[in-house]
Amino acid sequence: MPAGGEGGTSGRGPGRFITFEGGEGTGKSTQIRLLAQHLAAAGHAVTLTREPGGTAMAEQVRTLLLLRGEARMDPMAETLMHFAARADHLAHCIRPALAEGRIVLCDRFTDSTRAYQGAGHGVPLTQIDALDEMVTGTTQPDLTLLLEVPPAVSRQRRVARDGVGGGDRYEDLADDFHARVAAGFSQLPARYPGRIVRVDGSGTETAVAARIAAIVAERLAL
Amino acid sequence: MPAGGEGGTSGRGPGRFITFEGGEGTGKSTQIRLLAQHLAAAGHAVTLTREPGGTAMAEQVRTLLLLRGEARMDPMAETLMHFAARADHLAHCIRPALAEGRIVLCDRFTDSTRAYQGAGHGVPLTQIDALDEMVTGTTQPDLTLLLEVPPAVSRQRRVARDGVGGGDRYEDLADDFHARVAAGFSQLPARYPGRIVRVDGSGTETAVAARIAAIVAERLAL
Repeated sequence: MPAGGEGGTSGRGPGRFITFEGGEGTGKSTQIRLLAQHLAAAGHAVTLTREPGGTAMAEQVRTLLLLRGEARMDPMAETLMHFAARADHLAHCIRPALAEGRIVLCDRFTDSTRAYQGAGHGVPLTQIDALDEMVTGTTQPDLTLLLEVPPAVSRQRRVARDGVGGGDRYEDLADDFHARVAAGFSQLPARYPGRIVRVDGSGTETAVAARIAAIVAERLAL
Repeated sequence: MPAGGEGGTSGRGPGRFITFEGGEGTGKSTQIRLLAQHLAAAGHAVTLTREPGGTAMAEQVRTLLLLRGEARMDPMAETLMHFAARADHLAHCIRPALAEGRIVLCDRFTDSTRAYQGAGHGVPLTQIDALDEMVTGTTQPDLTLLLEVPPAVSRQRRVARDGVGGGDRYEDLADDFHARVAAGFSQLPARYPGRIVRVDGSGTETAVAARIAAIVAERLAL
């Protein structure tokens, strides 16, 4: 069943738009790459992109946002920076790719803004939703895969990858911030039941990839 | 008479918030400096700032926005970048200064977004107003001085300052863009009659400064 009951094309070209969401250390980046390979091997034209980023302008915003040691930015300013990058990403990457019939896989999208800037930093969801309406409009994802692992596992993976104290500005934020973000993510599937599917991110990469491929096949017939 | 009929304090501290607006070559930057000197000489605590800019984060956004040779940015992305910088500027510079009772003089504010991104690049004013409500909220300027000079004069001043083909990305845009921006500015006083005052920017710096000082004295009793 296509997400959102819109027949899968969502009124914006023949492509499909799939987003990956979840906290750090949930395996998102690995799994989105594996899905891209899987779909490309099946003959689909795939665009693999990420947020914040995906265009030259948006990657510059990413650098500004993730800069280590940056003085604390106002949460609404941070939210608007993400939507600014998203507007450019949609205009110059995502919408053109969907119009060409490509499958767009995006590592993080508006749900990350809801979890990090909304649940994490207290920006009202009503404001984030108003910005999403203004910027994303009808280009909503057909399917969002929310990767979830137990907090101890994600923390272990983050430390294994970055070392203690490594990583970027987001990684440095305190554990209670990560707990609020995780809670924010966990509340989203109930808000968007037709679009967001929870994925158990524990186990081997191959096992998780098989779960994801099965969900994509069932939901989007890909 | 205080602008906006709010008694001058606008519910956000005892300070006064004055913005300068107008196209390039209208003398804004010179005149805002002269007004700052005039008010400081009269014993007022003055904060002189500008947009985009005014905080470390907002100055980084300014650099990104004004970068010469930058590929065309999506107009909504550009609008959101300005409001992101504005949110940080309000949170970390303008609101604290107003709370301390300072007079804040700001070189460009939301009216420039209305003129450049709205009238110039076609972003709907309804969206700019919605963002202004979200970001600026009740921290509206008490008084906005709109500097106007004949197009031939502003063009001559721009060329004298930057040389032909000099200046930043905004300066490079074609004459029809500047004409739309000028038209956008000229329509604003009718929209905000209690706040925006037109200032004839022709004549000597001293003559213009005297006009501005008279308006500020009459409107804000400063």
